[in-house]
Amino acid sequence: MNLRQRRKKHLGNASSFFYKQPLHIVKGEDVWLIDSNGKRYLDVYNNVAHIGHSNPEVVDAISKQAATLNTNTRYIHESIIQLAEQLTATMDKGLEVCYFCCSGSEANDLALQLARNYTQQKGCLVTKNAYHGNTSVVFQMSPEDCSLEFREGWVGLVGGPREYLDNKEKHLSDSFKVAEELKKEGQAPAAFIADNIFSSDGIFSVPEGYLKNMYDLVRSFNGLTIADEVQSGFGRTGKHMWGFQHDDVVPDIVTLGKPMGNGHPLAAVITTHEIAQTFNKKYGYFNTFGGNPVAAAAGLAVIKYIHKHGLIEHAQSVGSYFKEELEQLASSLNTIEDVRGSGLFIGIEMRSNNEASEALERLLDEGILVGQTGPDNKVLKLRPPITFKKEHADIAIQGIKKALTLEA
Amino acid sequence: MNLRQRRKKHLGNASSFFYKQPLHIVKGEDVWLIDSNGKRYLDVYNNVAHIGHSNPEVVDAISKQAATLNTNTRYIHESIIQLAEQLTATMDKGLEVCYFCCSGSEANDLALQLARNYTQQKGCLVTKNAYHGNTSVVFQMSPEDCSLEFREGWVGLVGGPREYLDNKEKHLSDSFKVAEELKKEGQAPAAFIADNIFSSDGIFSVPEGYLKNMYDLVRSFNGLTIADEVQSGFGRTGKHMWGFQHDDVVPDIVTLGKPMGNGHPLAAVITTHEIAQTFNKKYGYFNTFGGNPVAAAAGLAVIKYIHKHGLIEHAQSVGSYFKEELEQLASSLNTIEDVRGSGLFIGIEMRSNNEASEALERLLDEGILVGQTGPDNKVLKLRPPITFKKEHADIAIQGIKKALTLEA
Repeated sequence: MNLRQRRKKHLGNASSFFYKQPLHIVKGEDVWLIDSNGKRYLDVYNNVAHIGHSNPEVVDAISKQAATLNTNTRYIHESIIQLAEQLTATMDKGLEVCYFCCSGSEANDLALQLARNYTQQKGCLVTKNAYHGNTSVVFQMSPEDCSLEFREGWVGLVGGPREYLDNKEKHLSDSFKVAEELKKEGQAPAAFIADNIFSSDGIFSVPEGYLKNMYDLVRSFNGLTIADEVQSGFGRTGKHMWGFQHDDVVPDIVTLGKPMGNGHPLAAVITTHEIAQTFNKKYGYFNTFGGNPVAAAAGLAVIKYIHKHGLIEHAQSVGSYFKEELEQLASSLNTIEDVRGSGLFIGIEMRSNNEASEALERLLDEGILVGQTGPDNKVLKLRPPITFKKEHADIAIQGIKKALTLEA
Repeated sequence: MNLRQRRKKHLGNASSFFYKQPLHIVKGEDVWLIDSNGKRYLDVYNNVAHIGHSNPEVVDAISKQAATLNTNTRYIHESIIQLAEQLTATMDKGLEVCYFCCSGSEANDLALQLARNYTQQKGCLVTKNAYHGNTSVVFQMSPEDCSLEFREGWVGLVGGPREYLDNKEKHLSDSFKVAEELKKEGQAPAAFIADNIFSSDGIFSVPEGYLKNMYDLVRSFNGLTIADEVQSGFGRTGKHMWGFQHDDVVPDIVTLGKPMGNGHPLAAVITTHEIAQTFNKKYGYFNTFGGNPVAAAAGLAVIKYIHKHGLIEHAQSVGSYFKEELEQLASSLNTIEDVRGSGLFIGIEMRSNNEASEALERLLDEGILVGQTGPDNKVLKLRPPITFKKEHADIAIQGIKKALTLEA
């Protein structure tokens, strides 16, 4: 059997490949991925390798710590405390208690537990095509994957930035009705949760007032606010460390994941002492791997690297350049309907799902990796490691230009 | 602020320490942990560092792979396929599809999703003091933490080995009634799940017929069987790779975790093609970090090391020696009520919770780390890395003897 057959036999078909001919990647270097034939791809897709594939400083930190000690947070260990201090220092006063876990799914699951316990309410408001993860309850909070047929009554869908930008008043009155309906059914919203770059909702920078209004709304139902920073966090969206800071709000709970350990499984929930204590008194929380010394070392190395290399400002400036170039390209190509996003998280909305899929495959031929997302799956997702430079943006632009101007 | 104050400020009090004076561990070497004062502790507790703390072969595998590539399972990668092949080769024919995730909690959450989807039933039978993890639904399946006050109606509690050994017929008729009750309420059991060393139920080797009978029972309700091997797996219980193999049953779903990456976050769900396909057709599953190349490298290194050093047989022989010595000690000490377990997972049941707590602290003074578990928290949990040797058992025996014979 070849690799693909062996994979099918033992990994089944749970998760699809990105491409018709799946990629067999064997090496990663900064913004480059190399396949088994030695072909190099410019990685404009993978956000997990946040500060570059195989970043030597993270590798070094992991290797040294793994050779020294890897236990758990029931023992005192300096580095996890340092990581908690450094993370909470980037957030508003009050957000100072961290729970460490292994994945964004675990983080969002715990965030909902915290909110439900604190509010003693059950419901949750999520955006219409949100993705927040894959545990039993977080799957429910992910209408991108969980269709109406499988959805439980405690989930209320509200419009994302598209609906808000179309008609703010309608968006807010519709959202209010959804919350009211949940309340009427005895499932008032425990929380409103949003991914603050709205990736699966089509990629939008936070529109001014969107979070402010939604936070006010859910709080009027005594619900909490959860900022899902799993995708938008760690400086990717430019200007700020966290996506929610673009709308100058203070969430009650923040969840972190993907880029946090540059690939090492590491995630966190950050909240206030009041919310944490109310939960800990009744339940407590322990996560075997969450925040272990090796994960902490990876997390510290990532933050250090971001600051040392000014990567938040870098994401802002390279992202702006990249987006402007794409906008210019869009103005001359009628296959592109819109270019959106913030920092190094950019969406190119194509006219159709098919055109987006075709572009994805053509870009692969050009040696450029991008993703596909959005409610109709017609948005190309550009989300490279944030060490991505102007010269890489230029390569990407040339490739996109070529891929989109080819005859079908 | 000192470390402990800083920890409280930023990690809160979600998880308790093991000891009145928390340990500040800075280094791990095989079966030894070393604190910040240089004091060495024989680790008779930590099962996650399955093949020894800072095992050089795992460190080397992780370091090399992290320096080469760390992506995700939407690309083809050789090592995750190898890991799936090696894992499934240790199980009965039919158990051949792997889902990789980051923690035992994620694995058990997914296992319940698979069972619920396949059976189209909602309930779950768990042992009375089970612990299976901490996601929203898995917390429900963990009566050790989730008390009656918080328990949802779909969870049915059945007796563990203690009840079975006391009176098999009563155990089975009681269990049948619980399943009947769930069914009556429209929540027939989708699954019966058991940790096959019954750690939080007081540590028991699988009694002959226990799993056979419970599997027959839940199957008579069209439910599936889940073997939670997060604690009992990877040869720890001696003789077999997996705990369920002690009762010669074939579960429908097996979950793996803790020791799987020797501390690297890695877990899995293994099931049949039929169960997987039924799920994948409707839902699919993707886990960002689950089964990434670094995790796969850690998993492969662990399996290789277990086989190369014959650690299953080793766990059996050292475990038997250790248990016999403990039984001899028990016969001369009336503070010990029972010695139980299998391989290198041994429980010493003390007369009371207090006596167990005192013993734990005294053993710390003797430089020996053990845990505490069971429905009344009166069982000392001995569960060292399985590289633990006869000479380490001798040190532990001397320490336990001294700790238990000291005047209060």
